[in-house]
Amino acid sequence: MENLHESSFVNRTMLLADVAMGRKKADLVIRGVRLVNVNTGEILPDTDIAVAGECIALVGDASHTIGESTVVVDGAGLYAAPGFMDGHIHVESSMMTPREYARTVVPRGTTAIWPDPHEIANVVGEAGLRFMIEDSRDLPLRIFNLMPSCVPAVSGFEDAGAELDSAVTARFMENPEIFGLGEMMNFPGVLSGDEEVHRKLASTAAKGKTVTGHYSMPETGAGLNAYIASGISCCHESVRAEDALAKMRLGMYAQIREGSAWRDLHEVIRCVTEQNIDTSFACLISDDTHPNTLLELGHLDHIVRRAISEGLSPVTAIQMVTINTARCYGVERDMGSVSPGKLADIVLISDLAAVKVEKVYKGGRLVAEGGQLAIDLEARPCPDSVKNTMRLPKRLTAADFAIEAPAGAGASVKARVIRAIEAKVGTLAEVRDLAVENGFVKADPEAGVNRFAVIERHKGTGQTGKGFVSGLSLKRGAVASTVAHDAHNLMIVGADEEDMAVAGNALADCGGGMAAVLDGKLIALVPLPVAGLMCEEPCEDIDRKVRGLDAAWKTLGCDMISPYMTTALLSLAVLPELRLTNKGLIDTVNYQFTDLFI
Amino acid sequence: MENLHESSFVNRTMLLADVAMGRKKADLVIRGVRLVNVNTGEILPDTDIAVAGECIALVGDASHTIGESTVVVDGAGLYAAPGFMDGHIHVESSMMTPREYARTVVPRGTTAIWPDPHEIANVVGEAGLRFMIEDSRDLPLRIFNLMPSCVPAVSGFEDAGAELDSAVTARFMENPEIFGLGEMMNFPGVLSGDEEVHRKLASTAAKGKTVTGHYSMPETGAGLNAYIASGISCCHESVRAEDALAKMRLGMYAQIREGSAWRDLHEVIRCVTEQNIDTSFACLISDDTHPNTLLELGHLDHIVRRAISEGLSPVTAIQMVTINTARCYGVERDMGSVSPGKLADIVLISDLAAVKVEKVYKGGRLVAEGGQLAIDLEARPCPDSVKNTMRLPKRLTAADFAIEAPAGAGASVKARVIRAIEAKVGTLAEVRDLAVENGFVKADPEAGVNRFAVIERHKGTGQTGKGFVSGLSLKRGAVASTVAHDAHNLMIVGADEEDMAVAGNALADCGGGMAAVLDGKLIALVPLPVAGLMCEEPCEDIDRKVRGLDAAWKTLGCDMISPYMTTALLSLAVLPELRLTNKGLIDTVNYQFTDLFI
Repeated sequence: MENLHESSFVNRTMLLADVAMGRKKADLVIRGVRLVNVNTGEILPDTDIAVAGECIALVGDASHTIGESTVVVDGAGLYAAPGFMDGHIHVESSMMTPREYARTVVPRGTTAIWPDPHEIANVVGEAGLRFMIEDSRDLPLRIFNLMPSCVPAVSGFEDAGAELDSAVTARFMENPEIFGLGEMMNFPGVLSGDEEVHRKLASTAAKGKTVTGHYSMPETGAGLNAYIASGISCCHESVRAEDALAKMRLGMYAQIREGSAWRDLHEVIRCVTEQNIDTSFACLISDDTHPNTLLELGHLDHIVRRAISEGLSPVTAIQMVTINTARCYGVERDMGSVSPGKLADIVLISDLAAVKVEKVYKGGRLVAEGGQLAIDLEARPCPDSVKNTMRLPKRLTAADFAIEAPAGAGASVKARVIRAIEAKVGTLAEVRDLAVENGFVKADPEAGVNRFAVIERHKGTGQTGKGFVSGLSLKRGAVASTVAHDAHNLMIVGADEEDMAVAGNALADCGGGMAAVLDGKLIALVPLPVAGLMCEEPCEDIDRKVRGLDAAWKTLGCDMISPYMTTALLSLAVLPELRLTNKGLIDTVNYQFTDLFI
Repeated sequence: MENLHESSFVNRTMLLADVAMGRKKADLVIRGVRLVNVNTGEILPDTDIAVAGECIALVGDASHTIGESTVVVDGAGLYAAPGFMDGHIHVESSMMTPREYARTVVPRGTTAIWPDPHEIANVVGEAGLRFMIEDSRDLPLRIFNLMPSCVPAVSGFEDAGAELDSAVTARFMENPEIFGLGEMMNFPGVLSGDEEVHRKLASTAAKGKTVTGHYSMPETGAGLNAYIASGISCCHESVRAEDALAKMRLGMYAQIREGSAWRDLHEVIRCVTEQNIDTSFACLISDDTHPNTLLELGHLDHIVRRAISEGLSPVTAIQMVTINTARCYGVERDMGSVSPGKLADIVLISDLAAVKVEKVYKGGRLVAEGGQLAIDLEARPCPDSVKNTMRLPKRLTAADFAIEAPAGAGASVKARVIRAIEAKVGTLAEVRDLAVENGFVKADPEAGVNRFAVIERHKGTGQTGKGFVSGLSLKRGAVASTVAHDAHNLMIVGADEEDMAVAGNALADCGGGMAAVLDGKLIALVPLPVAGLMCEEPCEDIDRKVRGLDAAWKTLGCDMISPYMTTALLSLAVLPELRLTNKGLIDTVNYQFTDLFI
């Protein structure tokens, strides 16, 4: 573990001893709080916390540490807990830069996150990682970036903007600002003993860093054992209580997820509420959260509140975003509890069960109060290296979306159609009869079948996978998005080919994002010029635009909840049953390309 | 943390995945055990454990991992637990070499210890450390030696055989066979901010290694906070439940001690049995254990049994010698639970509450069965560098023990006498009237006051501190010992000065140890030629000789329990109230030399 501190160890411990003993005075004393003691799982009354520099010098009676220059905070009626930590998250999903993300979540009590920046890495590779590392510096939030493990997600089935192999992984592991390996989605590679995959695990472990997991199968026998035996410490993909319980029993941290779209907590938390077990291997994480969720519900404060509402005691729930997370990442000597010697990352809470965060300290500094950042965050423009990532060989036209009927086709063909399902990550492989006209296959918006295209946009090849999607039910117009997991090519769905071209061209013009078009006119646009995934705007502005996009989907006939989120996964070939990438249609049950027509 | 494995990470994880998936067959499968699952604090029925190489490949149903060459062990009716770990121990206290210690404790279920070899370091310094490191290799026990932090224990008040400063400490921290810093007994130095002391803490922390503690004060406010804030992870010196509770609340591992002499468990375990707390910061340790205790009661098996008898659940007690200890030392990714990917250090237990250990595996290899080692341990003679450590300038005579009366003394003097207390580490400072004859002060064996001398024996100066001790009550004869904490000079107590000389000379002749003399004849001898602390004999032989010594003490008039243990601490100037070293009498309440006569 790299040193998290600004001062040398000797200077720091001598200062802390001086302050604890009263020879020097504390910089900050928070008096008379109810301490959420995650070490022993207790709530202790009337406790003071003395801070010297970045660290906690004393927890107990701090009267003797108060001097003339000590900032004294009255903690009467407040609970003090360690700052909240999110052990699995993709910042890009918020559409914000790390800086803006920090501004949004720190007032909610989050003081540390371990993001896997694999979205931007799929677009701009190492430049994206370097940007995320740089933008993570000097913030009120500790951002411990992980090295993405699977870029591209499914090699050979899609063209991403970069490929990060085991040699690149090993090189990044030497970087003290990389704190582990991002979710190893290639569990088939782990289980089959793929040496390239195991080399990525090895170079991480060799540096004492944490390998994080993604094991989304319900199988908890041979496969899960092989996965954990390979040195993978945690997994956020449990959707059933028994999955999470099996992982904890095998010594894996079960990261229980409550994101904007994937809300697993209600079901999965039963692994602890219905079992009388030691909960030290349970964590709470957000994975993917959108601006609206962050603004209206919150971040970890919301997830802890949800866990409490499901029956966890507040201190147990808070352990799952503090000391348990710290242990998962091997930073428990420096973080995760309000104890002497630890970094003074502290949240003050007024209503414990409601997790109402009043003040947030990072390294002893007040960084948020009353739901607002208490410090200035200077604007820092994103570098060109992560912008201008839309590379198409030409302007799109309606003709680009035409689909030729197979040779010898009659008046109709049987087509494989991707069926999207509301608020689920899975799709179904449907077969539909579609009409043929002048040698081309027609979609059937009236019957709920739309055209669907994924266009390579990284290298300028414009290679286009074409197909059909049902369930989104666009009656007219078109929508386009460069948030298209994980390769983030240009994805366009539409009832009208002209509008599809307009939508795609609009994103080409603004550097990526999300657009909706009706009758040749843009009716909603969320520009995401940073890699086509993020923008430099405040959370509130992004939220307003996204709500505009949501409304546009409805205007076009789709009444699905958050359709853009469901749509963004339709190209992710690690999920069942049928997906479309720039290379074509993929049967993700059997992991092979498949023909559009039967 | 240094790599604990023989094979490379890639080779190991690929093998484990192969075996878990059934593509290759396990080397060992233990079938159908009741698993003591320390991850979740449960006992799970009918579980198989598959082992490949040194590591666990699968926990669950291992049928598919069994091949023709797989060793299958029927675990029906047995419990499987992780191998037991002792996080604070001095091997020298057993008077055995590390090899012999391993032979003794491994059949009891111990598979890892973290010894602080500060006894031998006080005698032969770095050579002693190198010997302990070398003798710890290739054993059925994992021995993670720590760097002694306080050699000598109390600089300036005694002459030890070596001095290990912060520069030496930093150098040893580079050694991958040093796993942390031994008990930091100099808590006054930590609290006062002594830079030399803090440098030792810093060089340990810089290597990510664990700093272990020794905080023996009942104070749990400013001082304990200063101590913990300085980065010290654990402490074995709690003698009251509230001490241990305070430490755990502050995020320090409370190592609850049950040694041969210091039996704190009954009192201290109340910190968990009477509190409804998370027990993850509680450990069980032995500190100092003598051959008789190991043979008759056991090692950690005994301590776990004691904890269970005080009301802990078996799985909670076993967590305190497995996963909690592993977390304390930051090795939980490799050790401390029976989980896939962990080293296959496993004990099979027939009667759980009685902790009856039937089989012990280290790295998948059966190393003990039925209370006996199941492998051959070749003899390995100790090197000369740790022998022949008795360096006296001349043969001792009765005259060496004469104590001149102070100038102007009358028929009697008032002398400061060290009062030894049975089975306690503390002494009392007593004042006694002693007769003066021919200008010399007489002891008073009839009234329980014996002569006491501590003779420098490392550098050959023979410098002698002289005084009087009460409470041991030798009526005749004399006893001598080179086990004399922590400097391990030659300590002699006697009713007869001639016998004192004979006893001292006997130890000079045999390279150190413990001796009892009556009427000019040796009546008991425990030769400890390795640094005057250990010998190369089997535990059973040492035990027999020690029992002979115990009987000799009785013959000489002392009816104290284990008087040699109480006596061995009479020169340890970190304990109250009065002590004698080769430099003279020390008032250890005020940390100053004091006059023998008032």
